[in-house]
Amino acid sequence: MSKKANVVNRKTIQIEWGDCDPAQIVHFPRYFAYFDACTTALFKKAGFSKREMLKTYQIIGIPLVDVRASFKAPSRFSDTVTVESAVTEWSRSSFCIRHRLFNKDVLAVECFETRVWAALSATDPERIVSKPVPHEVIEKFSAGNNPATHKNSRRKKR
Amino acid sequence: MSKKANVVNRKTIQIEWGDCDPAQIVHFPRYFAYFDACTTALFKKAGFSKREMLKTYQIIGIPLVDVRASFKAPSRFSDTVTVESAVTEWSRSSFCIRHRLFNKDVLAVECFETRVWAALSATDPERIVSKPVPHEVIEKFSAGNNPATHKNSRRKKR
Amino acid sequence: MSKKANVVNRKTIQIEWGDCDPAQIVHFPRYFAYFDACTTALFKKAGFSKREMLKTYQIIGIPLVDVRASFKAPSRFSDTVTVESAVTEWSRSSFCIRHRLFNKDVLAVECFETRVWAALSATDPERIVSKPVPHEVIEKFSAGNNPATHKNSRRKKR
Amino acid sequence: MSKKANVVNRKTIQIEWGDCDPAQIVHFPRYFAYFDACTTALFKKAGFSKREMLKTYQIIGIPLVDVRASFKAPSRFSDTVTVESAVTEWSRSSFCIRHRLFNKDVLAVECFETRVWAALSATDPERIVSKPVPHEVIEKFSAGNNPATHKNSRRKKR
Repeated sequence: MSKKANVVNRKTIQIEWGDCDPAQIVHFPRYFAYFDACTTALFKKAGFSKREMLKTYQIIGIPLVDVRASFKAPSRFSDTVTVESAVTEWSRSSFCIRHRLFNKDVLAVECFETRVWAALSATDPERIVSKPVPHEVIEKFSAGNNPATHKNSRRKKR
Repeated sequence: MSKKANVVNRKTIQIEWGDCDPAQIVHFPRYFAYFDACTTALFKKAGFSKREMLKTYQIIGIPLVDVRASFKAPSRFSDTVTVESAVTEWSRSSFCIRHRLFNKDVLAVECFETRVWAALSATDPERIVSKPVPHEVIEKFSAGNNPATHKNSRRKKR
Repeated sequence: MSKKANVVNRKTIQIEWGDCDPAQIVHFPRYFAYFDACTTALFKKAGFSKREMLKTYQIIGIPLVDVRASFKAPSRFSDTVTVESAVTEWSRSSFCIRHRLFNKDVLAVECFETRVWAALSATDPERIVSKPVPHEVIEKFSAGNNPATHKNSRRKKR
Repeated sequence: MSKKANVVNRKTIQIEWGDCDPAQIVHFPRYFAYFDACTTALFKKAGFSKREMLKTYQIIGIPLVDVRASFKAPSRFSDTVTVESAVTEWSRSSFCIRHRLFNKDVLAVECFETRVWAALSATDPERIVSKPVPHEVIEKFSAGNNPATHKNSRRKKR
């Protein structure tokens, strides 16, 4: 859609027995734990280990302000699924991520997260405030815009 | 709002240490585990223990097909929150539930679940199919329509 | 057994659908989440909210160094269980807690936790070190030693 | 080390943000979820997908009757750890598994699980009963044996 060669991450997840409920299918809150891990992995692919990122930018995390998900097909323990994740939009201090979970070739779950770049308030450390997402973070996610690095990044893609 | 005195459930939840993440706030997938328990409690209040309900109606559960949530304010361990839950819409084989989580007087999280009345397919027990929600289930949730039973149901309310 | 009227806490837990696995019984890691909450509740009963306790004593928590559990009978969703928790031993910087989970009158799970009173190292804030448990904390758990408060605490017991 | 060619599985686990608590370290119940997944992976390595195994042998799972764990060093989000798992003993209807979780070269957690081969009772489908572990299952775990070491490994079995 966009000309930007945004970073896309693909994460393989093994559905575990303990992720499933008495109906023998994944208990839906576990999908959100998967997606949270997928967001971490997406940032890692763009060059940011979550632990380093928090230290470098003095943030406490990237908590959600909004999420929605559609569950189109169930998954079961012993299934291996793949989640494709990408940032779909950058705003000043928030951003959107889309996760698409595929079970074999079926799009089983689709999830849209809106997260904020969050720090403790300088005046009241009990309060969490949003802060502008640093340009260099956004840049790293659209590295493909530069034809040279684009090729590079494609070569590195698994 | 509506003339129907729909069943509303209020559940008190203690935010546990293990529900919180390194940012010291509730890890968002845990909210969905809370809400799932609140849906169970809502059915209980309407007269349906989940275990009995599954046996009686030969269903495997009431899995989600869609969910969205807004996180308006964080909650922390040792907080006590209250979740107010109600069915907002009945369709043929699905229904919507709204959960509103209050931390003190602040609406901290709002969540909308769409769930289906689900059974194993008679022809292919590996497949899950939706079935019409039984009338008596819907009736129990709107018992207040009848002025007599209304008083009754209010008396039973805690 | 002991002359000390140690604080005992009884916590009622509703077994949730999402705590159970495809075998329809509680997935065992969830028991440890219950017990962690029971330890928090035990301290609360002795007068210490976990959040306040961490601030007051400048600790980061009371992490486990050792745990063992026996699972004697399964529990299922819609079951209501009771966990009886008490400190069984205080050492210099660690202590033992016993949890007994009853399903109706059956002792279903027994768990022994050894936890440490833990703070960040003054010299290396990346390191967690154990510290002596403050006397006043231990005192509060054996308040019953004092005849006056003893009567009091017994009267307050549910 | 031993002449027994018992199956050993090594599983790499990424510690996720959501696995950690406000003390910034893995919340201990999550370790048991890891170990449960490691047991599944160990059986997979021996040739048994959990889903197939349940169908083939008509069991409902391999639930725990006993577990103990020592937490020797904390792990944090963004850490990558390795768990080494092996069956240490086969009894008639139960077996023991040892998991050792290494963070870099440090043995961070050690866990011993006792599990049973469990089925629904033929006479009372509400009851779970243990059944003898099939010989072919035990065989597969020592399959690496060439005929010579095979005999050896059988002799060593308790």
